[in-house]
Amino acid sequence: MTQDGSNEVIRLPESAVLALAADFLLSHGLGADHAGSMARILTAAQRDGCLSHGLQRLPGTRDTISHPRFNRTPDPKPVDVSAAITRIDAQYGFSCLAVDRGLSSLVEKARTLGVAILAVNNGFHSTALWPVVEAIADHGLVALSMNPTHAWVAPSGGRQGLLGTNPLAFAWPRRDAPPYVFDFATSAAARAEIARYRQEGRTTPEGWGLDSDGEDTRDPAAILAGAMLPFGGHKGSALATMIELMAGPFIADRTSRVSMEFDAGASAAPCHGELIIAFSPGILGDEDPLDAAESLFQGFREQDARLPGERRYRERETSHRLGIPVSKSLLERIRV
Amino acid sequence: MTQDGSNEVIRLPESAVLALAADFLLSHGLGADHAGSMARILTAAQRDGCLSHGLQRLPGTRDTISHPRFNRTPDPKPVDVSAAITRIDAQYGFSCLAVDRGLSSLVEKARTLGVAILAVNNGFHSTALWPVVEAIADHGLVALSMNPTHAWVAPSGGRQGLLGTNPLAFAWPRRDAPPYVFDFATSAAARAEIARYRQEGRTTPEGWGLDSDGEDTRDPAAILAGAMLPFGGHKGSALATMIELMAGPFIADRTSRVSMEFDAGASAAPCHGELIIAFSPGILGDEDPLDAAESLFQGFREQDARLPGERRYRERETSHRLGIPVSKSLLERIRV
Repeated sequence: MTQDGSNEVIRLPESAVLALAADFLLSHGLGADHAGSMARILTAAQRDGCLSHGLQRLPGTRDTISHPRFNRTPDPKPVDVSAAITRIDAQYGFSCLAVDRGLSSLVEKARTLGVAILAVNNGFHSTALWPVVEAIADHGLVALSMNPTHAWVAPSGGRQGLLGTNPLAFAWPRRDAPPYVFDFATSAAARAEIARYRQEGRTTPEGWGLDSDGEDTRDPAAILAGAMLPFGGHKGSALATMIELMAGPFIADRTSRVSMEFDAGASAAPCHGELIIAFSPGILGDEDPLDAAESLFQGFREQDARLPGERRYRERETSHRLGIPVSKSLLERIRV
Repeated sequence: MTQDGSNEVIRLPESAVLALAADFLLSHGLGADHAGSMARILTAAQRDGCLSHGLQRLPGTRDTISHPRFNRTPDPKPVDVSAAITRIDAQYGFSCLAVDRGLSSLVEKARTLGVAILAVNNGFHSTALWPVVEAIADHGLVALSMNPTHAWVAPSGGRQGLLGTNPLAFAWPRRDAPPYVFDFATSAAARAEIARYRQEGRTTPEGWGLDSDGEDTRDPAAILAGAMLPFGGHKGSALATMIELMAGPFIADRTSRVSMEFDAGASAAPCHGELIIAFSPGILGDEDPLDAAESLFQGFREQDARLPGERRYRERETSHRLGIPVSKSLLERIRV
């Protein structure tokens, strides 16, 4: 891989990676807050070894920034819908800035009432959900987040794309450890993973997708031209449908199909809503919910079952010690 | 099947089935409200063709009613935790009575704030979740419900039971159709299904469970003595863990492992909590969220993909016309 030096990896301090990402976005006309928010979330992914959601997303942001509706300098402001719900319009910028600006209202409402919602509308979205739910858990709250994407996934029993890859992320705060966090697509595989199979000339595992005639196929090119499948059969399909409804119509925003129509072939990041729900543990009991949860996590350790997120936290620790790894070839592509 | 007449099915009016179920429970000392609530939920399942959650549960309720902690005459009363959260203690009776009594508070809070929670504690639970979420959708609200069970399911990468079969149910109201409803266990198969394979001397499909040494097996007896597996690999496992946390520690109630310890071999229904969240569609937009959802459901119809719940609604319609089917052999076992 490093024979020609193109995949050689160097490690940079977090501040340098952040500056690199922000400079790239600033050079494309993004406002400072907007660029900073996006740079932070991409840097967090790069730091944690989630390379597919890291700096390699930067070159592709050009397609999004070029979308006729994209707003380089949005100024999202939280709006009170009720004592439990805050809404924030991303104003057709990247959704992460709206999330950042809505978070303190969400946290405050969840602390007061025990449950609260942040509805983010009209954001171009290509970043992972786990940094958001983790940030809420860092406030001592439980968080759940979900969003539609584009209509790439056939429902169970169907033959063509209708649902999105619809990720679901969850975080539970822990006292002496980083939060329990998961973040998964409700499709059997990520779209980028299928593209990698195509690039490498391999057939995919069974159950990943259908060709344009709605027939099962293991040909990644046929899946990308046809439809992906949900994970876990009809159960995953039902979950993906729930996410369409809750992060679409419920928050008065686009379903995956409408988001894809909105894109109109521009290959921008999907533009849609994001639903974030926060819960205050402890509001319902005298006993400490975090202690009770630890005994569940202890049950994982007893049988050497990994908690989701553990690999990320290990990568993070290494990045903190040695710097964040970035491939030289990627660096060359994003250096302004 | 009907050669000896034992599986012959007769159809009874709903009122007769309700009375049969209630009389059975009253004859075991349950209070009238308590018996009525349980009879209604069992009758609904029988009516909709969900036989495993229907009247055939009645004989087994004896084991639950005999549990030293079971309370035949609970009197659950809703308590305001916050403007968004109501808690109700089932007082060690069947959880359905507490759910019934907490519902109007949940509905009122969700209408006011847009989101609300009903936390049900200390209920013996053997009934399906879909009747509850459907009842909330009948009030024009969206509903999500979940609960732990017993520690029968190994987490992904694990070798022994820790998580429950942890069902997740969701309902979205529709204007000119019954609600969109799903209700699935996060285990690969239901425990009763595995028991049926054992009874019929068949091997199960792959991926349903592990033997006592934590090795993959298709022997249903070995799975029942060992551990079940979650659906959908690490994603289903993560979802089941979320349900443990949210319907366990978050609402200050038992995890599946603690519920199993509480049972202490009595073979009663699992005693635990239940989390119900209701959302008010329309609170976030001028546009009608139900109309937007219909265009998603239309996408299912366009490709002949079935919505979950459709089979139940068809069975219900037949039951309304012809009466609710009950096998004669079951009738003989439950007639007081």
